[in-house]
Amino acid sequence: MRYEEFTIEGRNAVIEAFRSGKTIDKVFIQDGCQDGPIATVKREAKKQDTVVRFVSRERLDQMSETGKHQGVIAYAAAYGYAEVEDMLKLAEEKGEPPFLLLLDNVEDPHNLGAVIRTANVAGAHGVIIPKNRAAGLTAAVARASAGALNYTLVAKVTNLAKTIEDLKKRGLWFVCADMDGAQMYQLDLKGPIGLVIGSEGNGVGRLVKEKCDFVASIPMKGDIDSLNASVAAGVFAYEIVRQRLGGIK
Amino acid sequence: MRYEEFTIEGRNAVIEAFRSGKTIDKVFIQDGCQDGPIATVKREAKKQDTVVRFVSRERLDQMSETGKHQGVIAYAAAYGYAEVEDMLKLAEEKGEPPFLLLLDNVEDPHNLGAVIRTANVAGAHGVIIPKNRAAGLTAAVARASAGALNYTLVAKVTNLAKTIEDLKKRGLWFVCADMDGAQMYQLDLKGPIGLVIGSEGNGVGRLVKEKCDFVASIPMKGDIDSLNASVAAGVFAYEIVRQRLGGIK
Repeated sequence: MRYEEFTIEGRNAVIEAFRSGKTIDKVFIQDGCQDGPIATVKREAKKQDTVVRFVSRERLDQMSETGKHQGVIAYAAAYGYAEVEDMLKLAEEKGEPPFLLLLDNVEDPHNLGAVIRTANVAGAHGVIIPKNRAAGLTAAVARASAGALNYTLVAKVTNLAKTIEDLKKRGLWFVCADMDGAQMYQLDLKGPIGLVIGSEGNGVGRLVKEKCDFVASIPMKGDIDSLNASVAAGVFAYEIVRQRLGGIK
Repeated sequence: MRYEEFTIEGRNAVIEAFRSGKTIDKVFIQDGCQDGPIATVKREAKKQDTVVRFVSRERLDQMSETGKHQGVIAYAAAYGYAEVEDMLKLAEEKGEPPFLLLLDNVEDPHNLGAVIRTANVAGAHGVIIPKNRAAGLTAAVARASAGALNYTLVAKVTNLAKTIEDLKKRGLWFVCADMDGAQMYQLDLKGPIGLVIGSEGNGVGRLVKEKCDFVASIPMKGDIDSLNASVAAGVFAYEIVRQRLGGIK
């Protein structure tokens, strides 16, 4: 598996990592730390749009593997994120209408990995996750993807609603999975499409949902009212696959 | 959550648990232990068709929470398994053709829980798992089911192939999910049906597969060749839901 999760600890190590161009998923800084190197870490993080979290010293101590974090720990993935543009290019090369999966608030690495795997198997051209409030491409995600992370384009964007807006101008339609929508079987999902899946707890955020062209639901016939996020993504993705195959039966 | 996983340790405690009628999922006995009480444990386990595993003393020491296992540890679930018959009754009460999910070799509690959740939401009448080589209904399964375990009938059977045979006599058709089958969209899945899902590593066992009426596949369009077991179960289950709804579009 070529995705190892790196924990980078200590001020200089983290600053160097940023400057070398590594993809840093998150930086944890000790609450109240304000000196020069920490200010540099914050500046670099801002430049690269990296999520910064301020945590207690006890938390950092727990996270630390070396015991020498000096108030800062960064999580880096040995994975280069793709650009959304790459996904559109891939679709074009394959002569297929674009088919993208967008995840809003999916923070569980197991679910993210399973969705990436599903995206690959269902023939989607990529997975888009928001920079904030999303699991990074960690070793746990790679494992849950069963190797699909090696073959699947994953892009991290700053603002999911903005990305949707941009892609609508490129001809994509967006369908948002939510309980209050029309049954997915009744919608035409054959064209260039972005499928937006939310977290299990909170669903798709309001702003993102408002940008979508359709809201579609999976029929619920049981006592509980939601599927696991990766299962819901699979059920939806395969309705798209089915319709694209020509809607047999 | 009313399903707590119980670990019962020590000879007398385990014997008493059996005699009180508790559902014991598995018993671990130390290799080479042959005295009277251990023989009683084995006899009780046999009576109730409980899986027995012989393990090293080191393994038991690791599993032990009390440090006083005396060579035997039992796993009990505070969950009473249902009977397959209950599922057929439920279908009848609802006036629906039976729709059952059968899991072969699915040992991962996260997957089992997600499948139980999917079964509930998709309106299946129950989930059947084999006694051997299956995760028990542990706390981890209950958690992954997001509460669906409270509402979903789950039966444990000794021999899955035999259960399939019996149910075929009752009018059920069995469809086995496997890569080499006809595309699921081309099959009629509207009648009384049992859907058999295998493990990710090994798929559905040969004997079980031979008992099935159809082998059906999910179209695979990517670089890797299988979905997560719970995602595959969801995609299949919803193809059944779609067809039962009248095959819209």
